[in-house]
Amino acid sequence: MKNFNKILLLSLFSCFALPAFAQKASWIWYPGDFDIYMSNVMQNRRTERGSFFPVFWKMDSHYVLVDFHKEFNLSQAEEVKLFVEGTYNVKVDGQAILGFPKTINIPAGKHKLSLKVYSQGTVPAIFVQGKTVVSDESWLTTFEDKEWIDQSGKVSDKSGTTFVTAGSWNLTDPTKLPSQFKLPTKPLQAISRKKAETGTLYDFGKETFGFIKLHGLKGKGRASLYYGESPEEALSVDKCETLDHLDIDLAQKKDSIMPLSKAFRYVNYQANGNVSVDSVSMLYEYAPVTERGSFKSSDAELNKIYDVAKYTFHLNTREFFIDGIKRDRWVWSGDAYQSYLMNYYSFFDAPTVKRTLLAQRGKDPVTAHINTIMDYSFYWFLGIYDYYKFTGDQKFVQDIYPRMQSLMTYIDGRKNKNGLLEWMPGDWIFIDWADKLSKDGEVS
Amino acid sequence: MKNFNKILLLSLFSCFALPAFAQKASWIWYPGDFDIYMSNVMQNRRTERGSFFPVFWKMDSHYVLVDFHKEFNLSQAEEVKLFVEGTYNVKVDGQAILGFPKTINIPAGKHKLSLKVYSQGTVPAIFVQGKTVVSDESWLTTFEDKEWIDQSGKVSDKSGTTFVTAGSWNLTDPTKLPSQFKLPTKPLQAISRKKAETGTLYDFGKETFGFIKLHGLKGKGRASLYYGESPEEALSVDKCETLDHLDIDLAQKKDSIMPLSKAFRYVNYQANGNVSVDSVSMLYEYAPVTERGSFKSSDAELNKIYDVAKYTFHLNTREFFIDGIKRDRWVWSGDAYQSYLMNYYSFFDAPTVKRTLLAQRGKDPVTAHINTIMDYSFYWFLGIYDYYKFTGDQKFVQDIYPRMQSLMTYIDGRKNKNGLLEWMPGDWIFIDWADKLSKDGEVS
Repeated sequence: MKNFNKILLLSLFSCFALPAFAQKASWIWYPGDFDIYMSNVMQNRRTERGSFFPVFWKMDSHYVLVDFHKEFNLSQAEEVKLFVEGTYNVKVDGQAILGFPKTINIPAGKHKLSLKVYSQGTVPAIFVQGKTVVSDESWLTTFEDKEWIDQSGKVSDKSGTTFVTAGSWNLTDPTKLPSQFKLPTKPLQAISRKKAETGTLYDFGKETFGFIKLHGLKGKGRASLYYGESPEEALSVDKCETLDHLDIDLAQKKDSIMPLSKAFRYVNYQANGNVSVDSVSMLYEYAPVTERGSFKSSDAELNKIYDVAKYTFHLNTREFFIDGIKRDRWVWSGDAYQSYLMNYYSFFDAPTVKRTLLAQRGKDPVTAHINTIMDYSFYWFLGIYDYYKFTGDQKFVQDIYPRMQSLMTYIDGRKNKNGLLEWMPGDWIFIDWADKLSKDGEVS
Repeated sequence: MKNFNKILLLSLFSCFALPAFAQKASWIWYPGDFDIYMSNVMQNRRTERGSFFPVFWKMDSHYVLVDFHKEFNLSQAEEVKLFVEGTYNVKVDGQAILGFPKTINIPAGKHKLSLKVYSQGTVPAIFVQGKTVVSDESWLTTFEDKEWIDQSGKVSDKSGTTFVTAGSWNLTDPTKLPSQFKLPTKPLQAISRKKAETGTLYDFGKETFGFIKLHGLKGKGRASLYYGESPEEALSVDKCETLDHLDIDLAQKKDSIMPLSKAFRYVNYQANGNVSVDSVSMLYEYAPVTERGSFKSSDAELNKIYDVAKYTFHLNTREFFIDGIKRDRWVWSGDAYQSYLMNYYSFFDAPTVKRTLLAQRGKDPVTAHINTIMDYSFYWFLGIYDYYKFTGDQKFVQDIYPRMQSLMTYIDGRKNKNGLLEWMPGDWIFIDWADKLSKDGEVS
């Protein structure tokens, strides 16, 4: 009952906070830009033995200056709240409003609302909330409006300006800037702990992913965490793949959450000096997808295999579909293509497919195959084909079509004299991660 | 004598701080990237009546992930200090060093030092200072190293990786990150002040540029500044082009420097509530160029015209050559081309020409003419031609040549049936800022 009251109260607050019957607004940006930005954030989280381990292909970036606009026909005047990530101006019918307004009034009738946003480090993004005037994917955006005014006062006809509809991740909280986006977490406890030679080994019961939390950390010296899939790896402080070192000087007890997420089952906690800790737990980070597919057979072992596979797949379903939860956590096109197929059966989460395809492709000019791997460029096209087949989402295909064309032009330029594709300088020919597999010659 | 001692002391400190006989290091980055970044910063400083007023063409951005390396042959081991803007790793001969080292030791012999840097919001940049191991424009950089390792442990041959030599602005202070770059300033006082109808009008004696400083600001309410070339403009609070409003609540006196620079001769200070100020001064901001050309004739008026022109030109010589100190402060190609010619006579400041050419051109793909103006693309080529003619700097031409090619390809694609250029959708045909001047038809 207590919870029910809370929910009721929250609903009432929501009604007061937003205009009655308000349409649903979300943060919007130039399509694909937040996908590229967030994939940079994600792929630059990889470390190896405490060293930063970035990708070896070109990382693209968002457009830093973006114009957003939409025309509205209002039956009555509206108060409209504006939330913006970046430096911006606001125009109604082409007339700039002084400063950086947070609330504007739009009179009844037909009006054009425009915002132009500059943001170098994060994606230019807007959230507009009125009764009917809301930001959504129907807004038009461009990275070059070409809106000049000549010596006679004539404004350009913008006949050469390309407007495209906005992108969105359905982020509906105006107070949370897109750059602050994080997947949800929940606290989990280790199922056991035991003294190891020089530390304490925590077992979280199965392969998991998230942020280790040290409770009641105190003292002066170094606290170290060594992560492992196995007890052996976590105890091998000189060889385990990921680790954390904290140099602290704390007179009072303090909780500390590791800044970088890690994949592990076991964590080996060690400390020197007079550093002490009350307990070690974790914040499990996960993508909030819906389970839509299921499988059950008369064979208990097969069911277990399915469950393990599904859990592994869920771990690898995150901001994007990644190659593996422990090491790279990169958006490899070949791995993602397998994930798409599993996803259509298990979660049918279309947005994660779209995000992954946009992140992989990045921006023009094309200077290499996707992930530098020739076959991975082909998987990318197959991914779009399948996506359309499973979802019928024609708009996405139309939106991404120019980037399909430019990648295909790149591929076209790398054909051999027979019109077929084979290795050229800079290409990685993958085919499969198998030794003694010839990767020479033409790919038919 | 006191000053002399200070200088001596400073020199001694310098000797202790850096290894004896150290070679000169500077901050380096992917060539052109800092120019693009800083031109974004500069061009987004424009306001009109307190509203943000950005450009209408595509703003490009730096590469967010950049690899830097150089091979050294050391006669003896060296301690090397590393300063980095961004998240980074360090490798010696391909072996990563744990964490984010600030000092490393490189043994005698032939070794390759590599740093790989990720920075989304600012330009990935490094400053390396050893005795002979220093960062300078001889380092090689790339935005896609294509350094993969296949299933057999084989490392890619990098035959398809394009390395280019690093860019630099000769920023030699390792403690000052490139993103903190600012032109120098010096305090200037108004030559007079007088009470106006509702405020105080300060006259700084001539057209100038910088940041207004309010000394001893106190009280609760709004302090406003209205800027003008003339007293009339500064007093016209409803029409003057630039202004500042500060809403304050200060119990104690506090100095306040305006965050955005402005061009003005007169400043009209007004306050409401019980806001008070002790005095109003300015920080004059300038480019530290050297005067190399001179002109003197028997005609005093001609000499004065020359001096005014030279001063105006100096005001417009900043991070880049800009169109005008008061309004746009944008890097217009047509205006810059005139500046280049004046510069070769007056300052012969080659770096500012290079920076301006790089900033104007931005990155591929080309989606419009420079500043959207057809003739301005041509001025850009002329600017490079002149630069080479005056400086003989072949390296710069080689570096920028790929971007010359891609802009020329864009232009080539916009020829009419006679192989000549005329207006196409999206183009602004400038020719001159003159009314009743036909801009139709072919440009020969």
